[in-house]
Amino acid sequence: MNSDTFVLPAPPKEPFVRVVPLGGCGEIGRNMTVVETNDDLVVVDCGLMFPDAEMFGVDVVINDFTYVRERAHKLRAVLVTHGHEDHIGGIPYFLKAFPQTPVVGTALSIALIKAKSREHKFGEIEFVTVEPGDRVRYGAIETEFIHINHSVAGACSLALRTPVGTIFHTGDFKFDQTPIDNKPADFARIARIGDEGVLCMLADSTNAERPGHTLSERIVGEAFTAIFQRAKGRIVVASFASNVPRLQQAVDHAVRFGRKVAFLGRSLQNVVHFSSELGYLRIPPGTVIKIEDVESYPPEQVVVLTTGSQGEPMSGLARMSVRDHKKFKIVPGDTIVISATPIPGNEKSVYKTINNLYKLGATVIHGTDGRSHVSGHASQEELLLMLNLVRPEFFVPVHGEYRMLVQHGRLAVQTGVESENVFVVENGDVLEFTAEYGDKVGKTYGGNVLVDGSDIGGVGEAVLRDRKALSNDGVMMVVVAIDAEEARVIGDPDLISKGVFYIPESGEIIEELRATLRAALNEVSVEALRDVNSVREHIRNTLSRAVHAKTKRRPVIVPVVMEV
Amino acid sequence: MNSDTFVLPAPPKEPFVRVVPLGGCGEIGRNMTVVETNDDLVVVDCGLMFPDAEMFGVDVVINDFTYVRERAHKLRAVLVTHGHEDHIGGIPYFLKAFPQTPVVGTALSIALIKAKSREHKFGEIEFVTVEPGDRVRYGAIETEFIHINHSVAGACSLALRTPVGTIFHTGDFKFDQTPIDNKPADFARIARIGDEGVLCMLADSTNAERPGHTLSERIVGEAFTAIFQRAKGRIVVASFASNVPRLQQAVDHAVRFGRKVAFLGRSLQNVVHFSSELGYLRIPPGTVIKIEDVESYPPEQVVVLTTGSQGEPMSGLARMSVRDHKKFKIVPGDTIVISATPIPGNEKSVYKTINNLYKLGATVIHGTDGRSHVSGHASQEELLLMLNLVRPEFFVPVHGEYRMLVQHGRLAVQTGVESENVFVVENGDVLEFTAEYGDKVGKTYGGNVLVDGSDIGGVGEAVLRDRKALSNDGVMMVVVAIDAEEARVIGDPDLISKGVFYIPESGEIIEELRATLRAALNEVSVEALRDVNSVREHIRNTLSRAVHAKTKRRPVIVPVVMEV
Repeated sequence: MNSDTFVLPAPPKEPFVRVVPLGGCGEIGRNMTVVETNDDLVVVDCGLMFPDAEMFGVDVVINDFTYVRERAHKLRAVLVTHGHEDHIGGIPYFLKAFPQTPVVGTALSIALIKAKSREHKFGEIEFVTVEPGDRVRYGAIETEFIHINHSVAGACSLALRTPVGTIFHTGDFKFDQTPIDNKPADFARIARIGDEGVLCMLADSTNAERPGHTLSERIVGEAFTAIFQRAKGRIVVASFASNVPRLQQAVDHAVRFGRKVAFLGRSLQNVVHFSSELGYLRIPPGTVIKIEDVESYPPEQVVVLTTGSQGEPMSGLARMSVRDHKKFKIVPGDTIVISATPIPGNEKSVYKTINNLYKLGATVIHGTDGRSHVSGHASQEELLLMLNLVRPEFFVPVHGEYRMLVQHGRLAVQTGVESENVFVVENGDVLEFTAEYGDKVGKTYGGNVLVDGSDIGGVGEAVLRDRKALSNDGVMMVVVAIDAEEARVIGDPDLISKGVFYIPESGEIIEELRATLRAALNEVSVEALRDVNSVREHIRNTLSRAVHAKTKRRPVIVPVVMEV
Repeated sequence: MNSDTFVLPAPPKEPFVRVVPLGGCGEIGRNMTVVETNDDLVVVDCGLMFPDAEMFGVDVVINDFTYVRERAHKLRAVLVTHGHEDHIGGIPYFLKAFPQTPVVGTALSIALIKAKSREHKFGEIEFVTVEPGDRVRYGAIETEFIHINHSVAGACSLALRTPVGTIFHTGDFKFDQTPIDNKPADFARIARIGDEGVLCMLADSTNAERPGHTLSERIVGEAFTAIFQRAKGRIVVASFASNVPRLQQAVDHAVRFGRKVAFLGRSLQNVVHFSSELGYLRIPPGTVIKIEDVESYPPEQVVVLTTGSQGEPMSGLARMSVRDHKKFKIVPGDTIVISATPIPGNEKSVYKTINNLYKLGATVIHGTDGRSHVSGHASQEELLLMLNLVRPEFFVPVHGEYRMLVQHGRLAVQTGVESENVFVVENGDVLEFTAEYGDKVGKTYGGNVLVDGSDIGGVGEAVLRDRKALSNDGVMMVVVAIDAEEARVIGDPDLISKGVFYIPESGEIIEELRATLRAALNEVSVEALRDVNSVREHIRNTLSRAVHAKTKRRPVIVPVVMEV
């Protein structure tokens, strides 16, 4: 899939551990890190990323598994820090490539992976469910799962003990001193592991540019209280489906203010089902009603929970905003709480949804304005605290754009990590540690693998370039039949265009272009007509010039010369 | 261009004034307002908007001029509040449609319009240059230009006196009590006009959701001072070319800290040239050096001013960030100040540029973090002050997304405007005022007009739909030759694909698809082969199914049946 070929130095004979971030360094998404010792290899997380605007037609972006494939005999397990798409979304693709690999994580993560894998139709998968505090051993690598706070239930940091030393991977985290499940991060374990000595730490850099401390989830509760006190009509809360603590807060407020709760959307209903079963989400009996029954309750007794906080066009909220939802219609007096902030790139669609909701007469509370959302990621003070607790010898900022990694690296130096021991890496950089040294020893395949339909990796630069050209000015096809024996053009050239011209005007333009082309073909010598390639080139040039002179556009031109 | 047809009631016989916002209500961009009396019509501003991601291949978006065209005999002038693209960018297109219209504005606005019009190759245009305080009369409409603060020099509010009453249009504005040209807005005139009585005010809503007061441009000076004190290497400042106050601050700081200034980029050099000539920008002699000469100065004696604060791919800054600029290369130690915040939709490209600059070893100061940028638009306290100074009978929030207009309308009500006199309108809504009433009386064409190449409005929904389909999964063409007399297929179908398959694999897939198609055509009866449309349909269906079964993709399929 990648035209580069990477040659890595052979690993040393003495005990070593390699840490290879394959994704998440340089962008937020498709997180994946390989931890490899002399005889064993585990993968921490395997996420996906959603395509950006230039990746025309691509469904999702996953990681390049080449490094693992080349060492498949050493592969022991996939260890999952938490159940967000950018950490688990690639697992079904990974399991297709490496079917026998055990997948290890806490209960909600496993439930979410199972739900995803069903869509992909697998055989048996070996799931290993752990609890925070548990340890699992795969070959020479023993991993401890450590409770941490994040915007999904069951999130853990991992301490991977190897013969060379401990690799500490924070996963996505924040330090919430007043979380709504009353379980702050396991400071004691983290501090103990730090005391025992950590060779290398990898840590979440999402908010490394933000000074101060991320607000507690409890702040959202305060905002919800104010909103529920004021709202006279129905309340709709949109958040990420997997944000179980947020769902809990919305449910708690509904109960407190005498409202029933309806869940809208399949992914949300799935999560509510799992997390209630697993005990992460507590809903008192008699609280939940069906979305179809909402109409039979007075507006002030209803809360609807839904997804679409990122303005995703097919989500519950976006469809409500254009009155396209069969089961629920927004009416004036409804209060909509968008309990999230837009991920960079989603701003326009989020604002579009908000504007449409306003047009329907709803009141919209969005973003951090009303403190109706807090981040799930640690800001600078928490990153510094984590660094001071773990005190690693080496430090690798992960999970962030380059500018965030640089900033996180600076924080590490401030806490006493030697600046030459801070590795601001790109995806695919291979770090190697032994008793003697820790260094970047080379590079492996860390690029995007684009998934389009059933085709994994089969959408390369060339395909995207073509799609971009097509999207810009459309395509024109010209079919010319040539009598191969007599070397003369038969009949008129056939011109077909898609996405080039405004239809009511295109007939006339196409007639003119056809005439231009006919004249140009008449000037071609019999000799030249025998060379199909040169005829094609001639058609392309003539038509391209004519279209551009007429319209200043440059459609893709596909000449077909049929010899009959 | 628009399939709707709007029928408006005939205007009344008694004196009236119509106010018709054609653009800018519901989005930020392509601002344009018509003010029309019984016998005269003027246009306030005529801007453009840049296309969003779904407007494939569109160059710019302008306004629908139908309302003006239907009343072209009454058209007297285009009045310009200030020289930003979203207020003047449509003027060349407008002048193409209405060539004899005088264009009226302050000196920098006129200079910027002249520069734009040169690209469009016009005949003579009648430009009327005014100063703040000047009045111009066109028929029954007398317009006073009033000095206001904004992020471009020469910005004005307009008071349009008509036989029915005064229409006050704020233009884009903020109240800067300490502007760097020491000229706060002309509070006295605004207050006097308010005292005389204002029938209807239209006002900038960009920051209507922001509480408090927008910071003074002087704050940027303080940030620049701190940056210039710290920076040991070269300093690059990126801002909008037309932000003359910002350029002035950068130049002032360069002089103060003993640095030379180089200007990078043609648009920037243009603005520097005009605004120096017009006295808006003051550069001491000996300050400016050529960009080619930067290398011959020590790094601590250089400031480079450039554009690209929005991450525009062809801008100076974006090209520097990928080392693609011939005249200037970023080196470690350079400090880059991005003196702007991303416009919604530009976030990703701005962050990409920042990340790339970090990779080159530069220090980047961006956004409002370092107070190196302040908005040019009034926040809530300033909007309230404007409302209290002008005390209009009717109020129309303009220049904003719908949610901002709603919020601004609420502010107006807080200052005492009757809530039924607040019109939160959409583009094309026609407001009519007489001595008796003020009301929305109908709707005219207010939609987007898309410009692609030389074609204005010729890119409709159908073309965009085609381009979107092409961008998603590419296009496949099939050419089949049929012997018309014998009704049999000649030779093999010809298959050509663009943007569908990964090239190394496409040969094999195309062979398989060709075989499928051949088999399908063989089953077609002689009778059916005589009906070209049914053959086409058969090819399309067969191929579509086969491609989807194989790849889960749905390319656009174009069958060509040649009868020979």
